[in-house]
Amino acid sequence: MALVVQKYGGTSVGTTEKSRHVASRVKKTRDAGNDVVVVVSAMAGETNKLVDLCNQMMEPPDAREYDVVVSTGEQVTIGLLSMALKTMGQDAISLMGFQIPIHTDNVYAKARISRIENERIFDNLKKGRVVVVPGFQGIDDTGNITTLGRGGSDTSAVALAAALKADSCEIYTDVEGIYTTDPNIVQEARKIPRISYDEMLEMASLGAKVLQIRSVEFAKKYNVPLHVRSTFTETEGTWVTKEDEDMERVVVSGVTYDKNEAKVSILGVPDKPGIAAKIFGPIADSSINVDMIIQNISTDEHTDLTFTVPKTDLAQALAIVGPIGKEIGAKNIVTDDSVAKVSIVGNGMRSHSGIASTLFKALAAEGINIMMISTSEIKVSVVIESKYTELAVRVLHKVFGLSEEAR
Amino acid sequence: MALVVQKYGGTSVGTTEKSRHVASRVKKTRDAGNDVVVVVSAMAGETNKLVDLCNQMMEPPDAREYDVVVSTGEQVTIGLLSMALKTMGQDAISLMGFQIPIHTDNVYAKARISRIENERIFDNLKKGRVVVVPGFQGIDDTGNITTLGRGGSDTSAVALAAALKADSCEIYTDVEGIYTTDPNIVQEARKIPRISYDEMLEMASLGAKVLQIRSVEFAKKYNVPLHVRSTFTETEGTWVTKEDEDMERVVVSGVTYDKNEAKVSILGVPDKPGIAAKIFGPIADSSINVDMIIQNISTDEHTDLTFTVPKTDLAQALAIVGPIGKEIGAKNIVTDDSVAKVSIVGNGMRSHSGIASTLFKALAAEGINIMMISTSEIKVSVVIESKYTELAVRVLHKVFGLSEEAR
Repeated sequence: MALVVQKYGGTSVGTTEKSRHVASRVKKTRDAGNDVVVVVSAMAGETNKLVDLCNQMMEPPDAREYDVVVSTGEQVTIGLLSMALKTMGQDAISLMGFQIPIHTDNVYAKARISRIENERIFDNLKKGRVVVVPGFQGIDDTGNITTLGRGGSDTSAVALAAALKADSCEIYTDVEGIYTTDPNIVQEARKIPRISYDEMLEMASLGAKVLQIRSVEFAKKYNVPLHVRSTFTETEGTWVTKEDEDMERVVVSGVTYDKNEAKVSILGVPDKPGIAAKIFGPIADSSINVDMIIQNISTDEHTDLTFTVPKTDLAQALAIVGPIGKEIGAKNIVTDDSVAKVSIVGNGMRSHSGIASTLFKALAAEGINIMMISTSEIKVSVVIESKYTELAVRVLHKVFGLSEEAR
Repeated sequence: MALVVQKYGGTSVGTTEKSRHVASRVKKTRDAGNDVVVVVSAMAGETNKLVDLCNQMMEPPDAREYDVVVSTGEQVTIGLLSMALKTMGQDAISLMGFQIPIHTDNVYAKARISRIENERIFDNLKKGRVVVVPGFQGIDDTGNITTLGRGGSDTSAVALAAALKADSCEIYTDVEGIYTTDPNIVQEARKIPRISYDEMLEMASLGAKVLQIRSVEFAKKYNVPLHVRSTFTETEGTWVTKEDEDMERVVVSGVTYDKNEAKVSILGVPDKPGIAAKIFGPIADSSINVDMIIQNISTDEHTDLTFTVPKTDLAQALAIVGPIGKEIGAKNIVTDDSVAKVSIVGNGMRSHSGIASTLFKALAAEGINIMMISTSEIKVSVVIESKYTELAVRVLHKVFGLSEEAR
């Protein structure tokens, strides 16, 4: 008899009919002899509606009261799902964040879980009940309602699985798992059966659609096996687990891309110490997430500084960098928002050399110019012209053998 | 410096704009030097929407989970109203049923408040904050969410006023107070400045549109002065308080009517002991509320038994009474749903004689036949043909001097 935590997102419980389908899946797991704790999100669209109400009332909304309002979405779905289970003859009980309790810090709207008490959950499991828990919410030390930030339900599920020492945490979604790349671009994209936490984190831009990054960090920290799978089929999905020897053998696990970045180049910057801090300090203070930074050596005593930011933050970044550029005597600032970042991710890169050069050659053979490069132990990312994105993804997916049934 | 509990209903907080108006009223009371605790209902229509979801999922819905779902409506409005107050520079905090706590029994969906702790509320009032509390909800002894039943927000407000020993409890609504009768029928209907708890209870059929009966019982028990007034004007409304000497002088305070009853007559019932119990026992068991009962003396050893039930329960009542009628040998059962109950209510009746006969004469003068009569210490009710309702109300309003500025 295993203990399974299952998490269903907003589209899976978007209508009473869909919630009934979720209930039947939960019951099946229970009937197979497992204890089940279910974590649910708000009905699709509900959280946005609640956020809109808050913004209408106060901008920005008071953080404490915002959490009081937006946490109601999940409260509705836990009650309804418990009812659905009962109509199927499966006893069930909803337990709110304050009833469990799920303790968090008091950073409203983006609280972090500090501790989950498991006594009341175990008491109810022992009575043969399925326990239904709202994702996304908790309470702070003085009993104020807190929320974990958008997408926090994945994190709730993983944290519960860790606290309950569950055998696995199943994340249900509308795709069948994590793919070697976007199947919309590469028809031969394969579902990855197993992937390590670190690979999953690097595959953020692909995986974020399926899995919240914070939840993967949490799963890694507490070694919770994640099973990403479809709400609508019975097939196994993708297991996200700690690295094992098998994984080492796979050089490249996936190809990801991100078209949401823009490139900013500050040209002719005097090559003096402290310049980078002067530029990137204020950008970081504005919570703009700078991804890649490259500094080119220049002929005279000047240098060119290039970095990427999310497209949505480009205007704000320019407003900050413009005056600083003048102040430090930069010659010009140019931007390019028709760029894309393409990456290959894989544990095996650690022990295999020549991966980056294979990538460079493959892109060069297609005439794709590489503007920026950034690497980590298990990742190589390049920035290229946006129009080549799909071509680059297809070429890399092929050259690293991802289309074959290699695993 | 007084402590005032104010309660605003669902139409008063139906939109963010309306909630802003409520906030400005609250702030005005606060600026006048009062401590204010605000109780709010869910946005108009929200509770119905949540109840529908529950009924779609399970019929009847599991009571515990029903309360989890429907209590979210008020949670949204307390957060939003707190924000509205903050945008006006008035510090405010929402406190949920479990945070105060508001203790109830564990009869889900119609829980009764047993105890309200006041420490956290007073702590926040001392900090200069307005405390915003959801109506309708509480928790039981093991921390389960409970609700008080529809319209329970009035009761929440009165119970809070009692627990906090507030100086008054203001019930805000869309009319200016309690009227001597329905202003839609009698143009000269006057707003009643003061009325006793007992009169208010007897005027249920008028007052229920404005005030939940349970909240009046609660106010009477704990002697909480209620002030029923309009959200949209500044004028004084109606004070509902314990009886004082002034009230004794007013013989009749109001004229009420109720068109929602139907009359059932069981004709030719053998005049034997135990017959009434045989008939009314099963009706009560079906939770049908029998209002008036009259037994006519018959010529032979038979009697006619007439009673009234809510029109909506007539079919069910007949289904119960039919077989019993046969069993006890009744000659016939006839029904009439074109009847109305018209009542006069007033504390002064206790010490004034002849009130009933004045009523009988006034109706007789208009040719209105009285079918049934029922009286209490402070009330006389008659059942008449429905078509005479408005005429009867106008006549009685006039004959008892209610149109004059008598008070």
